[in-house]
Amino acid sequence: MTTGAYPSQSTARLTRERFRAGECRPTAGIAPGMTQTNLIALPRDWAWDFLLYAQRNPQACPVLEVTDPGDWHTGLAEGADLRTDLPRYRVWRDGVLAEEINDASACWEVHPDLVTFLIGCSFTFENALLEAGIEVRHITDNTNVPMYRTHLPCHPAGRLQGEVVVSMRPLPAAHIARASTITARYPGVHGAPIHVGDPKALGIVDLDRPDFGDPVRIEPGEIPVFWACGVTPQVAVMASNVPFALTHAPGHMFITDVPDSRYHV
Amino acid sequence: MTTGAYPSQSTARLTRERFRAGECRPTAGIAPGMTQTNLIALPRDWAWDFLLYAQRNPQACPVLEVTDPGDWHTGLAEGADLRTDLPRYRVWRDGVLAEEINDASACWEVHPDLVTFLIGCSFTFENALLEAGIEVRHITDNTNVPMYRTHLPCHPAGRLQGEVVVSMRPLPAAHIARASTITARYPGVHGAPIHVGDPKALGIVDLDRPDFGDPVRIEPGEIPVFWACGVTPQVAVMASNVPFALTHAPGHMFITDVPDSRYHV
Repeated sequence: MTTGAYPSQSTARLTRERFRAGECRPTAGIAPGMTQTNLIALPRDWAWDFLLYAQRNPQACPVLEVTDPGDWHTGLAEGADLRTDLPRYRVWRDGVLAEEINDASACWEVHPDLVTFLIGCSFTFENALLEAGIEVRHITDNTNVPMYRTHLPCHPAGRLQGEVVVSMRPLPAAHIARASTITARYPGVHGAPIHVGDPKALGIVDLDRPDFGDPVRIEPGEIPVFWACGVTPQVAVMASNVPFALTHAPGHMFITDVPDSRYHV
Repeated sequence: MTTGAYPSQSTARLTRERFRAGECRPTAGIAPGMTQTNLIALPRDWAWDFLLYAQRNPQACPVLEVTDPGDWHTGLAEGADLRTDLPRYRVWRDGVLAEEINDASACWEVHPDLVTFLIGCSFTFENALLEAGIEVRHITDNTNVPMYRTHLPCHPAGRLQGEVVVSMRPLPAAHIARASTITARYPGVHGAPIHVGDPKALGIVDLDRPDFGDPVRIEPGEIPVFWACGVTPQVAVMASNVPFALTHAPGHMFITDVPDSRYHV
């Protein structure tokens, strides 16, 4: 990756170093303009199923990079260590969340053939929304984005199945078309909203009780807008009883050295 | 796939039936507005390597669909048979072109675990160029598009490596920016040009001698514009000594029932 000089790259690098040293916080709004990614690492035996699952569900699981088995380096951030440079990880055993950790190095010792998938994250296009004068509420309020399980099925692949997870941002009605247009041109980081305005149609019962992340303030006249979310693989891990998986903790992403313009069509 | 009524869908279906009955011709300009795809089918043992190769080289190998092992159906065209519905196929053994055939059914008998990859084709966006008043010369002249091997390396994956193949369309200088803008919004079918105007920079010695397809008429004042091409996997098959592969013959694509608007960002 040679991306040339770009001021937020040093912020990205320094933030990864802080996470490596143990700091933990959601990453929305950090290093504006730099691509952020979801992470899921699976033993080699499950890699084909997952890559196929992602290919068949590209809006929820847009794959930006796949490592070779056992490799914890990435071309998206020179010198980064995928075992330690995210603020928080989740370890899954037999489809159940086993623990949350800040350093995942031990996972590579137990599973030396882990294949790591970096998947586009909608935090990436939030800077473009802000630049267009569209408020991103969870950045304003310094909380984690709310994420919800839906009843929309993904296309199954091999041993994997599950439903789509969405992130939600409340927007004034007048901003929805513009926000849709802007985000549509970032298909690598989930693209346009998959739904606007009717949580029940997605199977979401209560917006104040997200399945992941924090609830968000919704002002009068604002409408909930839903984007596909890279936590979708975690629901597949649960729904498919995957023996072992390592993922990021929702909202706690990998910050790359790649300017988000790389994923702008 | 439910795409609703769309006039060219019946043309697509009828064309597949003619190909199934033995007709053979390049497919540019057929069923305008319908997505066309490249095809490569590999034994299950090579499927991971190839899907990873495609993921790492998305401009040359944008994957639109992957079948389950042994399946010759596709969600992109109801009732289609991937063994017979392309106008021409190439059979590769140990990295060498072994034969060209019009009916590939026997390949599935010998290799019952074939995984078939359908990869976006730039013929898909040619209708958008025509609608913008931009001439597509090989359609005007009713020839196959010229395609060239380049010296641009793909990112290797597993046992696969090779160089990018490009298609070329000559355009008047005044049309190049518009053609770039239009095609950029179809990333699933190769997107924007990867190069404009200097064949030698790509390692192309003589535009009149394409490696695949036909030479094309270039008028004074026209500039060669190069798009990544879905024949790239065939060069990987050659360069990597793949034991067995089935592909489409260059320019002889699979015509789907999917309107090209589906791949427009």
